[in-house]
Amino acid sequence: MTTPLRIGIAGLGTVGAGVIKIIQTHADTLQQRTGQAFEIVAVSASNRSRDRGVDISGYAWFDNALDLAEQDNIDLIVELIGGSDGIAKELAFAALDSGKHFVTANKALIAHHGHALAELAEKNKVGLKFEAAVAGGIPIIKAIGEGLAANGLFRVYGIMNGTCNYILTQMEETGRDFADVLADAQRLGYAEADPTFDVDGIDTAHKLAILSSVAYGTKINFDAVHTEGIRSIGAVDIDHAKELGYRIKLLGIAEYSSDGLRQRVRPCLVSLETPIAHVGDAFNAVVAEGDFIDRTVYEGRGAGEGPTASAVVADVIDLARGFLTSPFFVPAAHLSDTRHLPMSENEGEYYLRFHVSDTPGVVAGISSALSEEGVSIDTMLQRGNDEEGAVYIIMVTHETTEHHMRRVLDKIGQLNSLIEPTVVMPIEQL
Amino acid sequence: MTTPLRIGIAGLGTVGAGVIKIIQTHADTLQQRTGQAFEIVAVSASNRSRDRGVDISGYAWFDNALDLAEQDNIDLIVELIGGSDGIAKELAFAALDSGKHFVTANKALIAHHGHALAELAEKNKVGLKFEAAVAGGIPIIKAIGEGLAANGLFRVYGIMNGTCNYILTQMEETGRDFADVLADAQRLGYAEADPTFDVDGIDTAHKLAILSSVAYGTKINFDAVHTEGIRSIGAVDIDHAKELGYRIKLLGIAEYSSDGLRQRVRPCLVSLETPIAHVGDAFNAVVAEGDFIDRTVYEGRGAGEGPTASAVVADVIDLARGFLTSPFFVPAAHLSDTRHLPMSENEGEYYLRFHVSDTPGVVAGISSALSEEGVSIDTMLQRGNDEEGAVYIIMVTHETTEHHMRRVLDKIGQLNSLIEPTVVMPIEQL
Repeated sequence: MTTPLRIGIAGLGTVGAGVIKIIQTHADTLQQRTGQAFEIVAVSASNRSRDRGVDISGYAWFDNALDLAEQDNIDLIVELIGGSDGIAKELAFAALDSGKHFVTANKALIAHHGHALAELAEKNKVGLKFEAAVAGGIPIIKAIGEGLAANGLFRVYGIMNGTCNYILTQMEETGRDFADVLADAQRLGYAEADPTFDVDGIDTAHKLAILSSVAYGTKINFDAVHTEGIRSIGAVDIDHAKELGYRIKLLGIAEYSSDGLRQRVRPCLVSLETPIAHVGDAFNAVVAEGDFIDRTVYEGRGAGEGPTASAVVADVIDLARGFLTSPFFVPAAHLSDTRHLPMSENEGEYYLRFHVSDTPGVVAGISSALSEEGVSIDTMLQRGNDEEGAVYIIMVTHETTEHHMRRVLDKIGQLNSLIEPTVVMPIEQL
Repeated sequence: MTTPLRIGIAGLGTVGAGVIKIIQTHADTLQQRTGQAFEIVAVSASNRSRDRGVDISGYAWFDNALDLAEQDNIDLIVELIGGSDGIAKELAFAALDSGKHFVTANKALIAHHGHALAELAEKNKVGLKFEAAVAGGIPIIKAIGEGLAANGLFRVYGIMNGTCNYILTQMEETGRDFADVLADAQRLGYAEADPTFDVDGIDTAHKLAILSSVAYGTKINFDAVHTEGIRSIGAVDIDHAKELGYRIKLLGIAEYSSDGLRQRVRPCLVSLETPIAHVGDAFNAVVAEGDFIDRTVYEGRGAGEGPTASAVVADVIDLARGFLTSPFFVPAAHLSDTRHLPMSENEGEYYLRFHVSDTPGVVAGISSALSEEGVSIDTMLQRGNDEEGAVYIIMVTHETTEHHMRRVLDKIGQLNSLIEPTVVMPIEQL
């Protein structure tokens, strides 16, 4: 008879309640699978009396989550408070400092402080695990850090924000514009009241920074992620992309070679022939490409009570089984300071959507800006003008660099005929 | 400085050569990721002089693979000989008996002797790992046994035989019949000279039996897998399935509930709306469904040098990291003797294809056999007769049981107008 694994949980939102449900529902199988009983000994949250659909009366209560780190009868702390700083960060350092394992779903915390936390965890020989931080129910960190660890990986990318994928799917299905669909999503609880982290790509960037580090053994660097969101995308873009054989997805993409690492989050056009184009609604999918496995694809629910709690408890199971690795699967001291490749060197084809007043010379003005930068056009579509005399001009370029594209846009930005800023998205070859 | 992990490799076909390539190519990163150097100390195969594209001159050579188990300077044996019995089995028991870890890609061995081997591995506190045995490059055993271990899983299914999936894809793309496409596949090296294990579903059944045990904590039972292959499928079936909104796939499906476990391998019709319908060519995909994660999908290459070797080395990495679990993730003594549900109780809709001479009363004969068993028809298609007066009649039934379906087929088998045995496939609701 081994001693139980004694757990403290900080944060009792939906995911916290989900973790408690799993540990209560599957007590016997968890013990059978790990050889240890899972015992929740204490919980902490901001509101003690809220009904969470789970019985927490048997657990010690702490108003201050930091107190959990002080308890000698806790072996492992689960942090589900969120936020890169504040109490979550304090708790993480305090827990690891006191020799407790620390399991979290907090992508912002890991993206910003993962390296320092990993150093502390390794120093104290305890676990720091964050499977739930990336792509919820999909065990993607385990797949990449363990399952594919025999490979040199060179590209990892995916749809990692369910809110954006839901909005883009809805825009396509209903033909409505971004703001409209976002408002609906907020009403239905699929998007936060403040949607900034989701729709501006920050949440995806947190996740991509974590995946990059796990995939390539590079020091996590959130600031090096080029990040754009989906606010400027219109129904008109989704329609035209489809007409051209593409779908618009917010992807995080991290490419690695001997030259360095390029991490980018932005909406892009992906061919309807590629699997990720068919991942709709709030689903997430991650693709990992390596020198021996070629391409593997992982798909599932990226958020929500059940999937996220499943990932949290999987981390706890690993620790109960005695699986202890460096948090990024390579000792923190050996994570490399890779060169971060600037976006300006990025090469590819681009989708451009100009919204202009239909006056003589407008196409000439656009075309000459492109030709001055040596950017040639593969496809051009123009839609008949509306009652105000405005037209959409859609162009797909041949291969060029981001540097030239930016210069083109600066020049076109000077044109008087421009009604709104030009929408530009890369066409990703996946 | 830790001691290296000393490896012996038995079997130097393409996968064996791939394992050596990974260990040679990624020596530094493997050491960084595990804290241990990987040192191949000895190899064994039937032909010493064959050019395998890798330098094996630095490794001790044994003509007899069993000698590897005798060597004191080997910590871990990789078995890539294949076959459920004979030398592979002897080596497995000898290796575990002598306290060495044992890593294998051999699905037949694990499907037949996995339980006894697991007992021995646990007794001697060594690792027995077989990630490469199921779905090659996809880390599906790790995903299910670790990543999803917080769930009660209730259904696991997938395309696990690349040869069959390649043949079915080719049949659809070229409109040619099974025998034709098989012959081509054999010529191209995509199918074995003796294709029995692949096309008759046995290989998939081996893999499904392994996955079931890992997913549900049940004692592995290959004999309980209902197994059918793809030989009887014609181009005509693929066409008609498509017309009805389906694609034909050879799936292994294992469903588990408090009633028991039902494992089946057979060609079936899957909706074009479900992700697995779009997994083509030699790709594999596995879907796992559980109470907290809902549905997760894993896709990648299921065979070949690189993907299979990647999975083998991932197992070696786990052991080098000190990740030691029961081989089926639950101690062998606790694996349950579940009830195996008979196929006769299986419920669902069925696709039927009759090949009959176009004589009066033939539809009446078929229809009355169906109605006598209470099976009603949802859809019926009949194609104009050919020069010999033969017609295809395609029917899709409403929900019924396998028991009734079998009785219907027995009755229809008596009809004089039948030109060839009736093709019957379930329509799987995925």
